[in-house]
Amino acid sequence: MILGGNGVADVLNFDDKPKEECGLFGIYGPNLDVANVTYYGLYALQHRGQESAGIAVSDGKRFKIHKDMGLVPEVFDEKLLEPMKGFIAIGHVRYSTTGSSLVANAQPLNFRYLKGLISLAHNGNLTNANEIRHRLALNGSVFQTTTDSEVIVKLIARYGQGSIEEALMKTMIDIKGAFSLLVMTEDKLIGVRDAYGVRPLCIGKMGDAFILASETCALDTVGAEFIRDVDPGEIVVIDGKGLRSIQTLKNPRQAFCVFEFVYLARPDSNFSGQNVTLVRREMGRQLAREYPVEADIVIPVPDSGIAAALGYAEASGIPYMEGLMKNRYIGRTFIQPDQKMRETAVRLKLNPIQGILEGKRVVMVDDSIVRGTTCKQIVQMLRNAGAVEVHLLVSSPPIHYPCYYGIDTSERNQLIAAKRSLDDIRKFIAADGLHYLSLDGMLKATGLPVDNFCAACFTGDYAIEIPQNVGKYSMEIEVD
Amino acid sequence: MILGGNGVADVLNFDDKPKEECGLFGIYGPNLDVANVTYYGLYALQHRGQESAGIAVSDGKRFKIHKDMGLVPEVFDEKLLEPMKGFIAIGHVRYSTTGSSLVANAQPLNFRYLKGLISLAHNGNLTNANEIRHRLALNGSVFQTTTDSEVIVKLIARYGQGSIEEALMKTMIDIKGAFSLLVMTEDKLIGVRDAYGVRPLCIGKMGDAFILASETCALDTVGAEFIRDVDPGEIVVIDGKGLRSIQTLKNPRQAFCVFEFVYLARPDSNFSGQNVTLVRREMGRQLAREYPVEADIVIPVPDSGIAAALGYAEASGIPYMEGLMKNRYIGRTFIQPDQKMRETAVRLKLNPIQGILEGKRVVMVDDSIVRGTTCKQIVQMLRNAGAVEVHLLVSSPPIHYPCYYGIDTSERNQLIAAKRSLDDIRKFIAADGLHYLSLDGMLKATGLPVDNFCAACFTGDYAIEIPQNVGKYSMEIEVD
Amino acid sequence: MILGGNGVADVLNFDDKPKEECGLFGIYGPNLDVANVTYYGLYALQHRGQESAGIAVSDGKRFKIHKDMGLVPEVFDEKLLEPMKGFIAIGHVRYSTTGSSLVANAQPLNFRYLKGLISLAHNGNLTNANEIRHRLALNGSVFQTTTDSEVIVKLIARYGQGSIEEALMKTMIDIKGAFSLLVMTEDKLIGVRDAYGVRPLCIGKMGDAFILASETCALDTVGAEFIRDVDPGEIVVIDGKGLRSIQTLKNPRQAFCVFEFVYLARPDSNFSGQNVTLVRREMGRQLAREYPVEADIVIPVPDSGIAAALGYAEASGIPYMEGLMKNRYIGRTFIQPDQKMRETAVRLKLNPIQGILEGKRVVMVDDSIVRGTTCKQIVQMLRNAGAVEVHLLVSSPPIHYPCYYGIDTSERNQLIAAKRSLDDIRKFIAADGLHYLSLDGMLKATGLPVDNFCAACFTGDYAIEIPQNVGKYSMEIEVD
Amino acid sequence: MILGGNGVADVLNFDDKPKEECGLFGIYGPNLDVANVTYYGLYALQHRGQESAGIAVSDGKRFKIHKDMGLVPEVFDEKLLEPMKGFIAIGHVRYSTTGSSLVANAQPLNFRYLKGLISLAHNGNLTNANEIRHRLALNGSVFQTTTDSEVIVKLIARYGQGSIEEALMKTMIDIKGAFSLLVMTEDKLIGVRDAYGVRPLCIGKMGDAFILASETCALDTVGAEFIRDVDPGEIVVIDGKGLRSIQTLKNPRQAFCVFEFVYLARPDSNFSGQNVTLVRREMGRQLAREYPVEADIVIPVPDSGIAAALGYAEASGIPYMEGLMKNRYIGRTFIQPDQKMRETAVRLKLNPIQGILEGKRVVMVDDSIVRGTTCKQIVQMLRNAGAVEVHLLVSSPPIHYPCYYGIDTSERNQLIAAKRSLDDIRKFIAADGLHYLSLDGMLKATGLPVDNFCAACFTGDYAIEIPQNVGKYSMEIEVD
Repeated sequence: MILGGNGVADVLNFDDKPKEECGLFGIYGPNLDVANVTYYGLYALQHRGQESAGIAVSDGKRFKIHKDMGLVPEVFDEKLLEPMKGFIAIGHVRYSTTGSSLVANAQPLNFRYLKGLISLAHNGNLTNANEIRHRLALNGSVFQTTTDSEVIVKLIARYGQGSIEEALMKTMIDIKGAFSLLVMTEDKLIGVRDAYGVRPLCIGKMGDAFILASETCALDTVGAEFIRDVDPGEIVVIDGKGLRSIQTLKNPRQAFCVFEFVYLARPDSNFSGQNVTLVRREMGRQLAREYPVEADIVIPVPDSGIAAALGYAEASGIPYMEGLMKNRYIGRTFIQPDQKMRETAVRLKLNPIQGILEGKRVVMVDDSIVRGTTCKQIVQMLRNAGAVEVHLLVSSPPIHYPCYYGIDTSERNQLIAAKRSLDDIRKFIAADGLHYLSLDGMLKATGLPVDNFCAACFTGDYAIEIPQNVGKYSMEIEVD
Repeated sequence: MILGGNGVADVLNFDDKPKEECGLFGIYGPNLDVANVTYYGLYALQHRGQESAGIAVSDGKRFKIHKDMGLVPEVFDEKLLEPMKGFIAIGHVRYSTTGSSLVANAQPLNFRYLKGLISLAHNGNLTNANEIRHRLALNGSVFQTTTDSEVIVKLIARYGQGSIEEALMKTMIDIKGAFSLLVMTEDKLIGVRDAYGVRPLCIGKMGDAFILASETCALDTVGAEFIRDVDPGEIVVIDGKGLRSIQTLKNPRQAFCVFEFVYLARPDSNFSGQNVTLVRREMGRQLAREYPVEADIVIPVPDSGIAAALGYAEASGIPYMEGLMKNRYIGRTFIQPDQKMRETAVRLKLNPIQGILEGKRVVMVDDSIVRGTTCKQIVQMLRNAGAVEVHLLVSSPPIHYPCYYGIDTSERNQLIAAKRSLDDIRKFIAADGLHYLSLDGMLKATGLPVDNFCAACFTGDYAIEIPQNVGKYSMEIEVD
Repeated sequence: MILGGNGVADVLNFDDKPKEECGLFGIYGPNLDVANVTYYGLYALQHRGQESAGIAVSDGKRFKIHKDMGLVPEVFDEKLLEPMKGFIAIGHVRYSTTGSSLVANAQPLNFRYLKGLISLAHNGNLTNANEIRHRLALNGSVFQTTTDSEVIVKLIARYGQGSIEEALMKTMIDIKGAFSLLVMTEDKLIGVRDAYGVRPLCIGKMGDAFILASETCALDTVGAEFIRDVDPGEIVVIDGKGLRSIQTLKNPRQAFCVFEFVYLARPDSNFSGQNVTLVRREMGRQLAREYPVEADIVIPVPDSGIAAALGYAEASGIPYMEGLMKNRYIGRTFIQPDQKMRETAVRLKLNPIQGILEGKRVVMVDDSIVRGTTCKQIVQMLRNAGAVEVHLLVSSPPIHYPCYYGIDTSERNQLIAAKRSLDDIRKFIAADGLHYLSLDGMLKATGLPVDNFCAACFTGDYAIEIPQNVGKYSMEIEVD
Repeated sequence: MILGGNGVADVLNFDDKPKEECGLFGIYGPNLDVANVTYYGLYALQHRGQESAGIAVSDGKRFKIHKDMGLVPEVFDEKLLEPMKGFIAIGHVRYSTTGSSLVANAQPLNFRYLKGLISLAHNGNLTNANEIRHRLALNGSVFQTTTDSEVIVKLIARYGQGSIEEALMKTMIDIKGAFSLLVMTEDKLIGVRDAYGVRPLCIGKMGDAFILASETCALDTVGAEFIRDVDPGEIVVIDGKGLRSIQTLKNPRQAFCVFEFVYLARPDSNFSGQNVTLVRREMGRQLAREYPVEADIVIPVPDSGIAAALGYAEASGIPYMEGLMKNRYIGRTFIQPDQKMRETAVRLKLNPIQGILEGKRVVMVDDSIVRGTTCKQIVQMLRNAGAVEVHLLVSSPPIHYPCYYGIDTSERNQLIAAKRSLDDIRKFIAADGLHYLSLDGMLKATGLPVDNFCAACFTGDYAIEIPQNVGKYSMEIEVD
C-alpha cells in the first residue's frame, strides 16, 4: 500500500540504542468511547514503537479496525476514530523485530476462525516461531505476514474447537519465548503474559472499565488507577462478569527485562512498584560510587542519560550542566547531508555549548552503548567545543549478547562490547576515560531481587531456550 | 489502511449497468520489464474493475507486490514500479462482487505455503465458497479477507504436498462456479478457466514472452499477438520450457457470459473470433428488424448504446444523431447537489441538445436496463428539450434474474424487469414505446452457437448449480 | 506550493489540438448556495481548462477563496465548499497560455485596493501586456504572477479613485487583445467582453439569480435559462438593483473565434444561436461535398472528429463505423513506455478494430491538425490493422498562423501547415489522400455572417494589432 | 491552497508562552548547495516558527522558490530541494503575528520590480504598516497578502529607480518598528537590522561563503564560524566582491528583546557573546537569592524551566528532581478529549511522577507566565501526585504589557499579570507560594548593560513609538 510520507526508511539512526518493539493497550469499557481512550493510551506508549499503530474495536458483533504505518497522531484522526464504536478495544504500537516494516505486519491482527472473530496484539518475540510455522505449513497453512504474531493466531485457530481460554492455554504450551498478548473476541478482553514475565503488562481500572497496558504511564494518561501487574504465566479474562484470572505455567525464576529499567520504559512508569526514573538516578549514584572521576562538570547525553547524570552529579558533588543541546524538532525524517557537511547530521540533533564546555574536564553520562559510533562523534564534538577531558560513564554494563526476546540490539557482530576490550572501546571513541556500571550495581539499583530479571544481553545467561539458527524469518514476500 | 481519496463510496451510480468484477493480466517475459507491461495491460482492462488494482512480480526468488484502492494510474507510478524487477508478473483490477471494497481484498493475493510463494488473481464468483470456508474453519483455518479468492488459496495450500499443477487440479474439483485464474509461483505463470468457460481468458505472445489476459484489447495495447482463448477446464502452464496445456474437466455445454458481448467487454475486444462492437452493431440491426419504429432520429445513450444505435439507424434508415452530450470529465467523484438542483447531477453527466431534439420523434437505443431509474430521467430530459416522442429500444432482453457468476446485477428485487410487465416499465420510464431485443435475436447476433452461452440473467437457466442461501459472505470484520 | 499529484507535467500530448485557455462562471444569487452552483458550472466548462480551478465568494464583506492545480473535482470537495457562504461567486478553470503552470497563477486573482476587495477571472490574452507591465513597473509596481490578468488588476487599482465601472472603462482603453472578464466586488458581479468579442460570454437567469458563463452548456447544467450573449465591448453590471449594461467601444467588425465552433467548445453549447455539434456536422457534410472520396467506410478520430465524420457519412452515403476505440480511462497521467514499447502509448489511448478495418478503404475525419505527429501514428495503426487505403479529411482549413488571442496553437514553426505543402503533409502522415475543408466552406457551415469571425489562424488576418516581439512574458520567477 | 494536514488550527495551546514569530537564514556560497545548507539552517531555527517554511534560491538569473505551511521537514524533501540550484539562498520559518496563518503569507516573498527580482524574508513587526498601506493604496497599490512584509516590498519597489541599497535606505526611513530583514537580488544577499536592534541577526562564515542567521545555533549546525552580530541600523551587503557594511541610523539606545534570553532563543545560541542557557541558569540562581524557599525538591516545568531550575537548585542547595515527565512524541496535533477525560489532554503532555513528588514540598520553576491557565493545571496535578506544598518560581518578571515588536504575547486582557495582583495570581493557580524574578535581577543575569534591552512587556516603556489603534490588519480576504 502507498504510505503518505513513509518515514520508515528515514528513521534517524543516531540513537545507537536497543529498540523496543511494541506497546499494548486494551480496554473493556461499556460506557466509554473505547477507541478514543485507546488512542490516548497508545500516545502514552509511543516510545515503545514508532513504525505503525493500530486499533481494533468490538461492538459485540463486529470489529472495526484501523492501522497504518506512522505515529499514533499520523495514523488516527477524529474522522477515523469517530465511527469506531464499541465497548472493547485493543491497540498496538510497533517497532519491528521480526517481520519487515510493512503495513501488512501492523497490528492488531484480525481474523475469523470457527468460533468467531479474534483480534490480537503482541509484544515480545517467539524463539520457536519458525519451527511452528513449518509444522503448520505441513498441514496446509499459508502465511500472509512475516510476524511471529500470525503464528500465534494460527495456533489459536487450530485449537479453536473449545473455548478461547482453552485455545490460549494450549497455544501457550506450544510457543516459546517472550510474549505479552492482548486478545479481543466479540465480547471479551484477554491479557496474557509468558511464564517468565519478560515483557511487562499491567492492569488498571477507570470507573467500571478495566484496562490492560504495557506501562503504568498509559494508565496515568487516561486517568485510570493502577491495580497490579499481570503475573508471569497469567491469563486475565475481562468480560461482562468482571475480571477473572487463570494462572497457567509460571516459571519459578522470573526474567523481567532489566533493560526496561535501563532505557526502554518511560521515566514515569513503575514496574513491580519501582519508579523508572528513580531507579535510573540510583544507577547514576551507584556509577559515581563505583567510578569517581576528577572532573569539573557532569553532562548527560540527552535525553536518555539525564536521570543517571543527575544521580552521578548528586553522588559525586560535581556540578550538573546541560552541555549538549538537543533539537526538539528533529523528527523521523530529514535530508541526509552530503560529504561536505558530514558533521551537520549530528549537529542537527545535538549541539555542544561552548560556553559550558570550554576548558572543562567533562564527565558525560549515557545509559548504554550499542555500536559506539554516536559516542565517538559526540566525544569529538565536545573536544571541538573546548572540553579538555571527556570521560564517558555508562549507567549499565557492556552489552555482549543479542536479545532473542523482542529487543533489537543489532546482530552480535555489531555490538562494540562483543568485539572489543574496554580499553579498545575507549580508544575507539577517543575518550579519556570509559566506565560501565557493574552488573550487581545495576541490579541493586532496581531495588528488586536479582533473580527477577533477565540480563542476558549483559551476561549471555538466557533464561528461555534460544533458537539454534537465528535470523528474521524470511517470508520472501515484500508487500508494500 | 488510509486511502488517498477514497472515491469508492462516491462512485456515480447513474450507470444502471451490471458491474463487471475483474480483469486479469499476466506475463512470463524473461527479457522484459514485466511490471510495466502489466501496468499497460491493466490500463487496457480498467473497464473491468475500477475499485482496486494490483501487481505482483517474481524474480525467481522473491515477490514484489503493490496494490491499493483506485484506478491503475492512481495506484501506480514510476517510483512504485521501478523496483518491481522480475520475469513474471500478474496483475488484477477489481470491482467487488464478493468481499467489501477494502484494500485487504485487493488482489493479487499473496501467500507462502509449504512449497514456496504463490500469488493469485481471480475473475469470477464461486457458488460454494461459504460451504468450503466452513469446512476449512472446522480444520482450524482462519480468514483475513472476505473474498472467494482466499478460499481458493487455502485449498491450494491444503493440497500443497504435491506439485502446484496437482494442487490446482484438486482445487478445481472442489470449487463450483465461475473462475478464470492467474497463478504465479516463483518460476511459473499459470492460467486456469472453469469447466464452463464463463469468464474469458486468452493467450498472447510478444516475442518470446507469453501473456494471459481477460480480453484481447490488452494484447493489442501492449503490442502482443493473439494466439487463442484458454479452453474451458484448461490449465495453461508457462515456464522456462514454454507453454503446456493440461485439459481437466470440460463441460459439454459451455456457458460463456453473453453479457460480455452485450455490455461488459471493450468494443475492440474479440471473443471466439467475434468482434464485440460488430456484434453490438448487429444487435442494433436485429433490433430494427424486430421493432421498426416511425421516428425522425436515432440517438444512443452514450457510450454503451452507440454501436447498437448505429446498427439500428443503418437497418432502419433513420438518421443517427448525437442528441445527448456526455461530459468526458465526470470522474468517480462529484459533490451531490441539494434538492434545489436535483436535475443537476444528471445534467452534469448528460446534456440533451435542444437543437437536435426539438420537435423530433426520437428512437433512443441503450444496451440494457437494470433498475430503470436513469432511463426515466433521460426520457424526461429529452422531452424537456423538445422531443415529441421518445421510444426506448434496448439491444438485449429484459434482465429477470440475478447473476451468481461474478456480475453484479443487483438483488432480484431491484431488477425492474423482474417486478414489472413490459408495459409497466414503459409507463414507469414514461416512454412512448419500449422494446427489448429477443433472446434469439441477441444470441444470433453473436454469430456463435447458442449453446456456447450463459444467458441465465435473461432466462433463469443456470448452467452451474447455484447456492440455496445466497448473499455476500459476511466476514463481519471491517478492515479499512 | 506542493501539489498533490501534479499531473500538469504529465498531460498527454497526443491530442495535437489547440488548447483552450480558460472557462468563466459567475453568479449573483442571494438565496442560492453560490459556491456550489459555481462548482457545477465549472464542471461543465472543464474542457476549457484542466490545469487549475478556483472559486471566490463574496458575502458582502469578505471574500472566501479556494484555488489549486487540478481538475474541478480534484480541487474542490464538500468540506472545502461548505464554508464558502455568500451571494456572489466567480469561478475559473485554466489552461495556461501566458504564465507558467503554477498555482500562483491560478485564478480568480484576489486583491484589496483603495475601494475594497476585487476578484477577477480572465479568459483571453492581451497583446500589449508587456508594454503595460513595463509602464507600471516604472511607477513602482511589483508583480507576483506571470499572468496578463495581474496587469488588468493593477490597472483597475491605478484607476481606483472613482467607481469600479469607471475603472473598468479606463482599463479597457489601455488593454489590447482578447478578453472576457468576470469581476466581483463586495456587492457586484460584473462581466466584460472585449470590443471584438473574441472570447465568448453569455448571460443566464435562474429564478432571481443572474449567471455569466463562457458557454451555454454551463447554463444547462445548473438548470439556468439562456438570456443572451454579452455584446462585444459591453460591461454588464449585476447587483441588488438587477442587471444593467454599459456599452463601451464596440468594434464595427467583430472577431469571434471560429475555432470555438471547430474544436474548442462543447458540442452542446450554442453561440449566436447556432449549436456547435450541428455546425460541426454541417462542416462534415460540406467536406463531403468539396472532397468526395471513393471509400468503404467513414471513421472519426474520436472524440473531436465524430460530428464531422457523421456529416461526411451522411452526405457521402458511405457507412459510418467506429474503427478506433478510445480508452475512456486514460486520464492525465500514465507512465511513459520505454523504447521497446513505443507504440503502446498511442494504443493505450486509441486501439484500431481489425474486424472493422481489414481490407477497407477508409475515410478518417478529424477536425484539425496542428503538428501532424499523432495523425501519422494513427494512419500507421490503421494500415497495420488491415486498412488498404486511408484518406484523412479535416473539417477545417490548414492552420498557418499562431493565435495571439488566447489559444495555444504552438509556435509557428511547429505548425505543420506553416512549413509544408499539402502534398508534403500527406506524405509525412503517409495517407493516401488528405483534404482540408475550405475557409469559405467552414465559415458557411456556421450559418453566421463571415465578418463575425476571427479566422486569423487560417488566414493571418489579425483583427487586433499583434505584438512585434512575441513570446510568453518571462517573469523569471519559478514559484512552485 | 489545500494543506496536507493543516495542523495550524490544531496547535496545542498548553504552552502559555509568548510566540516567537520568525527565523531567518541566508547564504551567499558560490560552491555550495545553498538550498541544502539553508534547509539545515532553518531546521536549527525551527523553534522560532512552526507554521510555515520557505526557501528561495538565485542562480544569478532566476529564482526558484518553495514554501508551504508546516515544519521544515514537512515542507521540504530531497525531490523538492534537488532542482533548487544557485549560489544565493534565503530561508524563513514563520509563526504569524501579523497576517493570518495562510500559505499566501508564507515567506520569503518574491516579486519582480523595475530592476529585477527580489526575495524578502522578515523577522519582526512594523508599528506603522497600516499607515503606509493606506498611503500606498491611494497611489493605486493592491495587496495580496496581509503581512507587514508586503508593505516593505512595495516601498522598495517605489524607490526602485536607484540601487537596491538606496531603495533599502529610503525604505528604512519610512518604516517604524522592529525588523531584521534578508533581501536577495539576482546577485546579492543583503541583511538589514532596525535602528534599535530589537530582533537578532548575526554573520557567519564557512570557507568563502557568508551566512546571515537569526541565531548562532544555525551557524553551529551548518558548521559555520561566528563572525559578529549585525549592528542596529546596519545594512550588510554580500556579493561577488565580498561583504561590505552600510551603517544607517543607529539609535543611541538599543532595544534588544530581553525575552530572547528569557525564553525565545535556543539554549545553545549566544547574543552579544552571552550564552543563552548560562544566562537562564544565572536567572535561576538570582531567583534563589531573591526568594529562598524552604522546600524538599526543585523541579522544572520542562523544557523551558530546566536551566533556571538547575540554577535555583544550585544556589539554594535543594535537590533538583525531574518531577514532571514530558511526552516527547506530542506533536502539533492530537484529538481533543471529551469532557469525561478533560485531564487527559494535559497528562498526555506532562505526567507527574508520584514516586518523586509524594509527601514533598516542591519548588517548581518556570521561565514565564502569560495567561496562567497551564500553571494552574500543573499545580493541581502535583498536588494530586502527593506534593504537600507547591511554590511556583518564575525566572522573569510579570508580563504586564503586550509586545508590538513581533512577539505574540496575546492581548493585554489575557495577560494574567495585567489584570491581577500577585496574590490573586497565586490564588488563581492555587500555589502555596509565587515569586517572580525582579526586573533588575533578570537584566543583571544577562551580564550586559541594562540599556541594551527592550523590556517593555515587563515595564511598558516602549522604545519605539507604538500605534494608537492596534490590531492585526484586516485584509478581509481569506485565501486558503
